[in-house]
Amino acid sequence: MTSAEARKRFPIVLLTDFGYSDHYVGVMKGVIASIAPAAPVIDLTHGIPPQQITAGAILLRESWRFFPPRTIFAAVVDPGVGTGRLPLAIETRAGARFVGPDNGLLWPAADQAGIRRIVELRSPRYRLAEISTTFHGRDIFAPAAAWLWRGVALRSLGRAVKEVAVARLDLGAGVQEHARDLKGTVIYVDGFGNLVTNMGRGEVENFAARFRGCRLSVRIRRRAPIEICKAYGDAPAGAPLATFGSFDLLEVAIRDGSAAEYFAAGTGAPVILRAER
Amino acid sequence: MTSAEARKRFPIVLLTDFGYSDHYVGVMKGVIASIAPAAPVIDLTHGIPPQQITAGAILLRESWRFFPPRTIFAAVVDPGVGTGRLPLAIETRAGARFVGPDNGLLWPAADQAGIRRIVELRSPRYRLAEISTTFHGRDIFAPAAAWLWRGVALRSLGRAVKEVAVARLDLGAGVQEHARDLKGTVIYVDGFGNLVTNMGRGEVENFAARFRGCRLSVRIRRRAPIEICKAYGDAPAGAPLATFGSFDLLEVAIRDGSAAEYFAAGTGAPVILRAER
Amino acid sequence: MTSAEARKRFPIVLLTDFGYSDHYVGVMKGVIASIAPAAPVIDLTHGIPPQQITAGAILLRESWRFFPPRTIFAAVVDPGVGTGRLPLAIETRAGARFVGPDNGLLWPAADQAGIRRIVELRSPRYRLAEISTTFHGRDIFAPAAAWLWRGVALRSLGRAVKEVAVARLDLGAGVQEHARDLKGTVIYVDGFGNLVTNMGRGEVENFAARFRGCRLSVRIRRRAPIEICKAYGDAPAGAPLATFGSFDLLEVAIRDGSAAEYFAAGTGAPVILRAER
Repeated sequence: MTSAEARKRFPIVLLTDFGYSDHYVGVMKGVIASIAPAAPVIDLTHGIPPQQITAGAILLRESWRFFPPRTIFAAVVDPGVGTGRLPLAIETRAGARFVGPDNGLLWPAADQAGIRRIVELRSPRYRLAEISTTFHGRDIFAPAAAWLWRGVALRSLGRAVKEVAVARLDLGAGVQEHARDLKGTVIYVDGFGNLVTNMGRGEVENFAARFRGCRLSVRIRRRAPIEICKAYGDAPAGAPLATFGSFDLLEVAIRDGSAAEYFAAGTGAPVILRAER
Repeated sequence: MTSAEARKRFPIVLLTDFGYSDHYVGVMKGVIASIAPAAPVIDLTHGIPPQQITAGAILLRESWRFFPPRTIFAAVVDPGVGTGRLPLAIETRAGARFVGPDNGLLWPAADQAGIRRIVELRSPRYRLAEISTTFHGRDIFAPAAAWLWRGVALRSLGRAVKEVAVARLDLGAGVQEHARDLKGTVIYVDGFGNLVTNMGRGEVENFAARFRGCRLSVRIRRRAPIEICKAYGDAPAGAPLATFGSFDLLEVAIRDGSAAEYFAAGTGAPVILRAER
Repeated sequence: MTSAEARKRFPIVLLTDFGYSDHYVGVMKGVIASIAPAAPVIDLTHGIPPQQITAGAILLRESWRFFPPRTIFAAVVDPGVGTGRLPLAIETRAGARFVGPDNGLLWPAADQAGIRRIVELRSPRYRLAEISTTFHGRDIFAPAAAWLWRGVALRSLGRAVKEVAVARLDLGAGVQEHARDLKGTVIYVDGFGNLVTNMGRGEVENFAARFRGCRLSVRIRRRAPIEICKAYGDAPAGAPLATFGSFDLLEVAIRDGSAAEYFAAGTGAPVILRAER
């Protein structure tokens, strides 16, 4: 490690839907180690369900701000690999950099971090010599992340792409359906079976402020109203609760259990927040 | 990396029940990288079944001694997150340090390593600025581990806690039920389906010494007696055997198969060691 | 880290069938960190199905060349642990080094990299003090990899073993069955359900050259002929296709789906490549 490299106190972070049974993630790390052997590499997760761009986009958006400034995120959930979709790198005002396919995966995180510059990963100098049609994680994205880490400027990786030309992904928010109802949607189910909605804390607090004195409750699947608690531990064991989890999004949980199983609900399920006298 | 940091030849080791599908573990690593970017981080496992404190406690006890002295273990299996249970850090005579919730998870390992000092993780200086009620792994335990790695003294993290005030977890041992029977319990089922009991090698050797000349066998689920072998490979393919596995605890296994499936047995199943003429 | 160690720009890479639920992999890393704390450790995968030597051998062969020269691969898929099978270390002309059991696991990769020297891991100096009969990954292979990384010469680890004495593993290739048929076999099913055959790109190109002007198609399970595409994205969503995946082996896939489920096929299934006018 040169002392210049030692001063780089930020990692390369990987997020993919490659799972843990194959060698795909390992091979990406081999490519990174070949180009930037001193770069620390951190797995965000490789357990995104196959091709679920939205799940990857949510986790990236919820995670980037807990990493050191200038961290390079290489994210690959890529049903369009081998077709015309562009490979991108994005620089943000917050410092975080994102590398991945132009399919919306990077959008919510990069947008939150403040997009400053986008390029298409096109320079043959910063890719592997042979580009397969099936594994751009290895051939394009891992090399781009490694060269960025080594200090190559974003603009050297390829031609600039305009922000308006890039695929967006809207994770949505609650919608006022009836006078006293805010209607949201489950956008992510975590490994504990917690049902994470797209209703943010600020949004719910604004809604609550308009119905001061009312009791707020959460409804899902025509079941009994669920109370909003401060912590999982505030509900009795086995009982449902709603809370603001680590995402700062309203989520429905079961104390010491799985809400996904309890309510037989998953991504896309509607969740109603109701204000009652 | 400063040269002082380069001299720190011990890692931060993580054990959780967070699984591999979410971003939770990755975010803990982001927090660590933000505070102590030069700290090597090793995953012990994140596959502890949700909320199974005992499984986490066993793996921690069986693992800590294979790591460099002064290693910092941050363990999170935490059904009581957000309630009153204390967050702890423990220093041991063997050098290992443990960070995690006060629910017994750390106890068997810390007790084996020789508890020297316990503190409650209370100092706001060594936590994230905002503490959620659902994710102390990110907000409290990861920062504590990272600051300890950087050299912050244990006592700076919070007020001392007396050993007697801390939650214990007893993994048990074999119990003499009849004259020639030692009765143990399955306390862990590993990924290969091996049934690990709470009967240690020393205990079994003492029992055997009292019945010199007798044949020892193991019984589970009213099935035929099982022989104690030196290695998995000593039994024919597909046949049951008992052996002292890597835990140095008596375990029931199937050569090239799963004893958990073969015996339809899991955690809590009784296992009898019998001495026969 | 000494500056000599800092100059070592290659990692130790682990491949096992230990899975992610236990502490086994973590403990191997603890042993490595105790001997060679500055060694970067990369997981190739630990999701090899239990005891499936062939799956491990394929992934190792497909991966080694993407890592820096001199990388040390420690691979453990080891049904014969505790029996007489030898523990090996292999040095290759390409620079890569391999450590693992003598059961064929290392063979395809080491053979491709060009075997230069093989030793039996026998020196007690470079093992843990106590050798269990169940966990050579911890007691023998991890220490060997760590000492090699530190610069110990291969020949210091134990006596030389002749290449002819070592277990081989032949992954096979397509076989011409009828005039216009090349018959291959599924040798690996990846996490996306892609069916990877043992028919290589060169082999298929030679076959195609002999039937210039003919249409090539792939058949599996008496189903309709499948076209060979350049990329997954070239087929309509949900449709089958054949392509040269990241292995450079012919594979059968479903666009955005699982071919293993679609064809109810797995390892060992025959796949026919046919040339038609």
